[in-house]
Amino acid sequence: MNKKVLSACTIAALGVAYSLSVFAQAKPETLVKQRQAAMTLQGKYFGPLGGMLKGSVPYDQKIVERNAGYLQVLSRMPWDGFDPSTKGVKSAALPAVFTDTAKVKDAIDRFQTAVDNLAAASKSGDEGKTKTAIGEVSKACGNCHDNFREKQ
Amino acid sequence: MNKKVLSACTIAALGVAYSLSVFAQAKPETLVKQRQAAMTLQGKYFGPLGGMLKGSVPYDQKIVERNAGYLQVLSRMPWDGFDPSTKGVKSAALPAVFTDTAKVKDAIDRFQTAVDNLAAASKSGDEGKTKTAIGEVSKACGNCHDNFREKQ
Repeated sequence: MNKKVLSACTIAALGVAYSLSVFAQAKPETLVKQRQAAMTLQGKYFGPLGGMLKGSVPYDQKIVERNAGYLQVLSRMPWDGFDPSTKGVKSAALPAVFTDTAKVKDAIDRFQTAVDNLAAASKSGDEGKTKTAIGEVSKACGNCHDNFREKQ
Repeated sequence: MNKKVLSACTIAALGVAYSLSVFAQAKPETLVKQRQAAMTLQGKYFGPLGGMLKGSVPYDQKIVERNAGYLQVLSRMPWDGFDPSTKGVKSAALPAVFTDTAKVKDAIDRFQTAVDNLAAASKSGDEGKTKTAIGEVSKACGNCHDNFREKQ
């Protein structure tokens, strides 16, 4: 390993350590509250889109586009809150969240990709394509909840 | 008022009516939970920036830029949750939130402008300018909390 690579690795390692130390400052209860807040807002902005897909809410392209943009940001927010330090805090997260990390990562990736696709579809103005994309986001939500959240 | 203007006003009024009807579907308790969730996440992403301003957290331009972008979205989220239907729900919101609406609007505008300025400053890479902008966001948070939130 040459010096440049070694130096880059050191910086990367420091970056990880730094991130961890930043998160470590937050109490486990705070981390749970913050991740639940992100989920609550995902619900706020996805809810009407699910209604549009089912037909219980009138289709409104502008609302879909705005909410999809919000969801792109929100879909990045909850995950650092599933820190191992939060294992003992009461929540609906199943223990698998902390053990089956590869599957968790896949579920997060699928969700973020579905949201990105929805944002792109909503900008196209194509209602059919957008509704299909809403359905994919809904499935991605369900995929994670089915595997990693207590039945509600 | 000419027809075009009248028509634009009608559409705007319908838009408001439609928005209200969409929000009216949410229970007051849900609206409070959602607005508190947005505040919680504002705290999550502003907290480290406040720390950087005070010097208790090392300055990191990348984190400032990311968090400022998140805050731009989050700064748009809580306000429709202060619906008159939520007056009776227990929260830290003072009654003035529902009566002094012009002052509330000014406080929201000031906060959103401060966050937009922070996002712009963080992209410039100028640490001094960015820290000044962090301070302005902090003051805008305080301005609203001082006037419209019970002392914590």
